[in-house]
Amino acid sequence: MLVLGVDPGSRITGFGFVRSENNRLKCIDYGHIGSSGAVPFYRRIHNIFEEMASLMARYQPDQMAIEDVFYAKNVKSSLKLGHARGAVLIAAVHCGVEIFEYSPLEIKKALVGYGRADKEQVRAMVRTILGLRSMPNLDTSDALAAAICHINSRYAAVFRGPAR
Amino acid sequence: MLVLGVDPGSRITGFGFVRSENNRLKCIDYGHIGSSGAVPFYRRIHNIFEEMASLMARYQPDQMAIEDVFYAKNVKSSLKLGHARGAVLIAAVHCGVEIFEYSPLEIKKALVGYGRADKEQVRAMVRTILGLRSMPNLDTSDALAAAICHINSRYAAVFRGPAR
Repeated sequence: MLVLGVDPGSRITGFGFVRSENNRLKCIDYGHIGSSGAVPFYRRIHNIFEEMASLMARYQPDQMAIEDVFYAKNVKSSLKLGHARGAVLIAAVHCGVEIFEYSPLEIKKALVGYGRADKEQVRAMVRTILGLRSMPNLDTSDALAAAICHINSRYAAVFRGPAR
Repeated sequence: MLVLGVDPGSRITGFGFVRSENNRLKCIDYGHIGSSGAVPFYRRIHNIFEEMASLMARYQPDQMAIEDVFYAKNVKSSLKLGHARGAVLIAAVHCGVEIFEYSPLEIKKALVGYGRADKEQVRAMVRTILGLRSMPNLDTSDALAAAICHINSRYAAVFRGPAR
C-alpha cells in the first residue's frame, strides 16, 4: 500500500510517499513543488497540476491523503489556496488515485496525540516515525503527516517505528 | 478572433464563445457546466476541468477572458470558488489558450458603462449586443460579458450590434 500525502499551497506544495510494509512505515520519497512569484499565478497553478500528475504517474500511489481545509487567514489567501488544492485534486482524479480528506485536527491528533500541536511537533514526530535522517521542511512534513494519518486511521499500522 | 468567456463557480460554471467578425460580435455557443451536490466536491472540480478542456478542444478559442476575483462572501465560499477557478485556468494552460483577467468592475463598466451595475443589467446588455433570442442564465451572461469586455478593451469592436 503506497500512500501519497499532500500539503497544498499556491507558493509551496509539499508531497510525500509513504509505504506501509508488514505493519511498518517507509518513506519512499518526499519534497515540494515551488515556483517563483515572478511566474504568473495561473502558470503556478498549472505547474502544480502537471508536477503532481507526473509524480503520480511515476510512483503510482494507491491512495492520496490531503488536508480538508475549512479556513484560511483571509478571503484572498483562501482563494489562492483553493486554486492550488484544486490542482492537486484534479491531478489525482486524472490519474485515478483515490482521495481521502482529513481535517488538520485529525492529522495532528493522529501524529502527536492532540489537535493543537504545532508544525514543529508534527515534524519531529514524522521524522521519528519514518526514521528520516534529515529534517524535511514544514510543508513536506505536513504532507507526510497526512499520509501517516491516513494509513494509521485506515490500516492501524503506525507507531511501530520505521521499516529497515 | 474567437474568445471564450468564463464565469467560474463550484456549482455552476458559465461559458460563452464570442467571435469578433468585421468589427461585429457573434455568439457562437454558450451554456453552463453544473453538477449535483450529491457528487463529491473533488469530482465536481475535475468535471469542470474536463468539460472546459473538451469545449476548448472543440472550438479552439484564441483567448480566454475570466473574472479576476479578489473577494467572496466568506472564507469557505472563496476556497470553493478558488478550486473551480483553478480548474478553468488549468484547462486553458493545458489547451494552450491565452488567459486574460478582468475585475468585475472592468467587466460591468465595459458592458453597462458603470461598475455598480447588477447582473440583470449586464445580462440585458449582453443580450442586446449579441442579439440573443433567448435570455441566458445569469452565470452564462456573466461569462459572455467577460468575453465582450475582453474584445472591447483589446480590439474596440463592440457596441455596433450583433453580426448577421
